[in-house]
Amino acid sequence: MHSEFDLITRFLAPTSTATAEGVELGIGDDCALLEPTPGERLAVSVDTSVAEVHFPASAPAEVIGHRALAVSLSDLAAMGARARWCVMSLTLPEADGDWVSAFAKGFHALCDTTDVVLAGGDMSRGELAIGVTVMGEVPPAAALTRAGARPGDCLAVTGHLGGGAGGLARWQAGDRDLAVPLLRRYLLPQPRLAAGMALRDLASSAIDISDGLLADLGHLRHASGVGAELSPEALPLADGLVEALGEQGARQAALRGGDDYELLVSLPPEYLDEARRRLAALGLPLTVIGRITAEPGLEGVEMSTSPGWQHFPGETP
Amino acid sequence: MHSEFDLITRFLAPTSTATAEGVELGIGDDCALLEPTPGERLAVSVDTSVAEVHFPASAPAEVIGHRALAVSLSDLAAMGARARWCVMSLTLPEADGDWVSAFAKGFHALCDTTDVVLAGGDMSRGELAIGVTVMGEVPPAAALTRAGARPGDCLAVTGHLGGGAGGLARWQAGDRDLAVPLLRRYLLPQPRLAAGMALRDLASSAIDISDGLLADLGHLRHASGVGAELSPEALPLADGLVEALGEQGARQAALRGGDDYELLVSLPPEYLDEARRRLAALGLPLTVIGRITAEPGLEGVEMSTSPGWQHFPGETP
Repeated sequence: MHSEFDLITRFLAPTSTATAEGVELGIGDDCALLEPTPGERLAVSVDTSVAEVHFPASAPAEVIGHRALAVSLSDLAAMGARARWCVMSLTLPEADGDWVSAFAKGFHALCDTTDVVLAGGDMSRGELAIGVTVMGEVPPAAALTRAGARPGDCLAVTGHLGGGAGGLARWQAGDRDLAVPLLRRYLLPQPRLAAGMALRDLASSAIDISDGLLADLGHLRHASGVGAELSPEALPLADGLVEALGEQGARQAALRGGDDYELLVSLPPEYLDEARRRLAALGLPLTVIGRITAEPGLEGVEMSTSPGWQHFPGETP
Repeated sequence: MHSEFDLITRFLAPTSTATAEGVELGIGDDCALLEPTPGERLAVSVDTSVAEVHFPASAPAEVIGHRALAVSLSDLAAMGARARWCVMSLTLPEADGDWVSAFAKGFHALCDTTDVVLAGGDMSRGELAIGVTVMGEVPPAAALTRAGARPGDCLAVTGHLGGGAGGLARWQAGDRDLAVPLLRRYLLPQPRLAAGMALRDLASSAIDISDGLLADLGHLRHASGVGAELSPEALPLADGLVEALGEQGARQAALRGGDDYELLVSLPPEYLDEARRRLAALGLPLTVIGRITAEPGLEGVEMSTSPGWQHFPGETP
């Protein structure tokens, strides 16, 4: 058994915090003290991952650590922001040093590959849940919001869709082999930070696909005051998705499944080649899946069922 | 029943967010976009309040909203930072519009009195818990940390102690009358933001008293590499504390009880008068309760029992 203080300082504080760039004071005082880049905007987002709501509690702790950070970073990616810092709030049913150690390993590994510093933390007793607030930076007027889509813009997605829902189906069927691509897509999503930054001056709007393509496209349409025409047959399906769910199931997973954490962007057709070139350099395809229309509403797809997954089923936003 | 989207936008987004100072983009996109003050440091802290661990789940929702923000802001106060923004993560067992509305009322009321803007939010299903990340600003080298206490400094506290523990005792005894001062002290703590800023160039170290005086003094001693000599008879006891808990109980509540959210500071004796003048202007007493010593350890008080409350009982930090 460790005290709260011990757990936080031993497992959550990376040795590098004190000397990390832009961090004057890291974990261990009342606040972290950070040095924002003069003239840039601070992009901030928070996401809480609750066990058995957002992820399986029995997933490996290392996976849970990665995933909790990844879903928050995905929001920075969708703004075209450069990720800088995060603070984390960990709620645990019991003080389990081995679990926290593995959790911290997964969390810190993603911090390292995304150049993010964990600057503060908090630990509480309760149902397993992880809240991660991420902070990034973006030059003024360079941020990608949901609000800039214009009629005539292409609608495009990075990477492949449906892997989140497909991986969840594999997990629910008992598959635990993390070498299976679909399972990795669900449990170990990769925030598209480099892609978001690369699209800064090309995309007219962006959102990350967390609730499902149709639901997130709905948010984007609503914020931009536009409509859209989708080409469902153009959706880039995740590897192995048709084999796992069948043709119909795969299409539905890509349209309505959540947890893909790809970027959905609108951009003028004349920027498409340049955008593809930049993303190809990152190893990511950019696929046109439709276009923005002036007429509000959505064409090309049946909206007879719920457009996406919500924590509290209720009215459609 | 409301959808998650509706709940967030209807109850959590203040109408003023879009035009608030330093907020380019508030609730409703993937991230908030904030404008930090050039040249200042960003002070960041996160605290999660879990029902039945940190507060009674049956407390009025308005009280819970106030309290969740107050305990986070208290960390900014302890750094001498000016509070600016916050993001909140609300985990709820069910979508209850009336509860969220009352919760938001308490939360926003404290935002208003402390000049804080709620810039982002997230809502999940699960056990009732509220995570609040606060962001403040402080000029370089002006921040009050735990690490600057020097031998010979006075040790002083703002306000009165023991009210948190005393109020909890009243609550547990069935008292629900929010007009009772002790109960207000426990349920509606006031973050000492103005006091922290007023003490910026006077205090050599500071911490807020959340875990209890002895525990938090332990953190301060540890960070500063000093010892302390306490005068327990000098502790400023909260109004009604002796009546509620008796002489002995009141003293123990002031020493070991948590949830007071007063500031514990060290400062050179020659600054004491000026510090008192500044705090008097804020309606707050500043009481000397001991002094910092070169010899590590604590004198003047029995440490035979646990120095403070911890989420996970274990080794003493």
